[in-house]
Amino acid sequence: MPQIRFDVLTLFPEMFSGFLHSSIIKKAHEKGLVETHLINFRDYATDKHRMVDDMPYGGGGGMVLKPEPIFSAVDELLSGTDERPPILLMSPQGVPFTQKKAEELAQHSHLIFLCGHYEGYDERIRQHLVTEEISIGDYVLTGGELPAMVIMDSVSRLVPGVLGNESSAVTDSFSTGLLEYPQYTRPAEYRGFKVPDVLLSGHHARIEQWRRQESLRRTWERRPDLLESAPLTDEDRRFLQELAKDARQGE
Amino acid sequence: MPQIRFDVLTLFPEMFSGFLHSSIIKKAHEKGLVETHLINFRDYATDKHRMVDDMPYGGGGGMVLKPEPIFSAVDELLSGTDERPPILLMSPQGVPFTQKKAEELAQHSHLIFLCGHYEGYDERIRQHLVTEEISIGDYVLTGGELPAMVIMDSVSRLVPGVLGNESSAVTDSFSTGLLEYPQYTRPAEYRGFKVPDVLLSGHHARIEQWRRQESLRRTWERRPDLLESAPLTDEDRRFLQELAKDARQGE
Repeated sequence: MPQIRFDVLTLFPEMFSGFLHSSIIKKAHEKGLVETHLINFRDYATDKHRMVDDMPYGGGGGMVLKPEPIFSAVDELLSGTDERPPILLMSPQGVPFTQKKAEELAQHSHLIFLCGHYEGYDERIRQHLVTEEISIGDYVLTGGELPAMVIMDSVSRLVPGVLGNESSAVTDSFSTGLLEYPQYTRPAEYRGFKVPDVLLSGHHARIEQWRRQESLRRTWERRPDLLESAPLTDEDRRFLQELAKDARQGE
Repeated sequence: MPQIRFDVLTLFPEMFSGFLHSSIIKKAHEKGLVETHLINFRDYATDKHRMVDDMPYGGGGGMVLKPEPIFSAVDELLSGTDERPPILLMSPQGVPFTQKKAEELAQHSHLIFLCGHYEGYDERIRQHLVTEEISIGDYVLTGGELPAMVIMDSVSRLVPGVLGNESSAVTDSFSTGLLEYPQYTRPAEYRGFKVPDVLLSGHHARIEQWRRQESLRRTWERRPDLLESAPLTDEDRRFLQELAKDARQGE
């Protein structure tokens, strides 16, 4: 019995082949924890040319996805069940996808993804079928397929048992609210570039302190917005104050 | 002669198969406008086990990508040329990817993508090889492959000649700085849900006004942050003031 089932409505099911047969998502399927169904909603078009889009009312360029094939495909998915899973529209108009949203979606046992061309969906699909519009970022993509894969990947990682090492998900970026500290591995010197002495010292308390400070420093430099919501100790705050002071003196 | 060349360093080249053989990116390759090379940097590992990662100095869970195979793979790509293309590290620590960044990257004729596991890269790769770290959003993914595809897709769309209809890229989301207006196509009534009368009126000026106002309304409701930088007319501002006034009265 899978923990979560993904139904993906798309005109390009072949785009998912590489993704579904690689890496974490492949293992999640092999373990039976995740199940994915690709549905080409062109199969639900009723006219003889199997049209899924049409010209926009009111004129203008581009095509608009018609309501009928998409409504019909979802109807069939949910026939004979009272289940009302989230129906997610991949759209640059949606609410920004975040790790918190991934955690929320991972609580469900069934998610339906609707991937269209970004040119346009008939508004009735948005208003009367879709439960949530999600955007993975402020950039224009050809279709919703890559966004669906991004969400499927991030949600799958949160399904219990999918990651071999349970600790991996926890120590990843964002879970501490800070950016990660720098990591080094062998060799200790490469092309003249050395690993910081502290990491070779074997002194665990000093290593922990260095890592925490580097994590704070990187967040302060690159993503100060994250510091507003990250849980910080008094020592963290003192270190951040020193960073700010040094920066002012360096100006 | 391609307009842009993508070199992708990855341990999972098979993940790209569906993406490269579908949709816009397939057409861009067929037209010879975009060229993509997938490089498995495991081929550059020098030890007999072809190891590409190792344990972190200083302890802790997870593995860290070693510097040697990645430096060597890039060395070979750039041997015999003075060219210094952007070397982009896919990382949640990076600067957020936006449409503006896509436009900037589309000016280059060559981009190198480095996709690792999100667990960790040896810091020397970041400091001495990579020119830019990019994040497609604040969520944790298994690897850099999907982010690379997202960037490749958005950049390819901006390469002249890739989109059949040149106007498509321009009228897409974000290019006006606002979210898109609602679109409708046939049938005029579906399951009792009707297309707004104005769109059936044939009155072009009224249609244009309705679309602009719906675009403003949606942006105001969902992404008010975008209004700060969007180019607005006096009429737009009056409409937004009315929206705000109606909302206050409705409270």
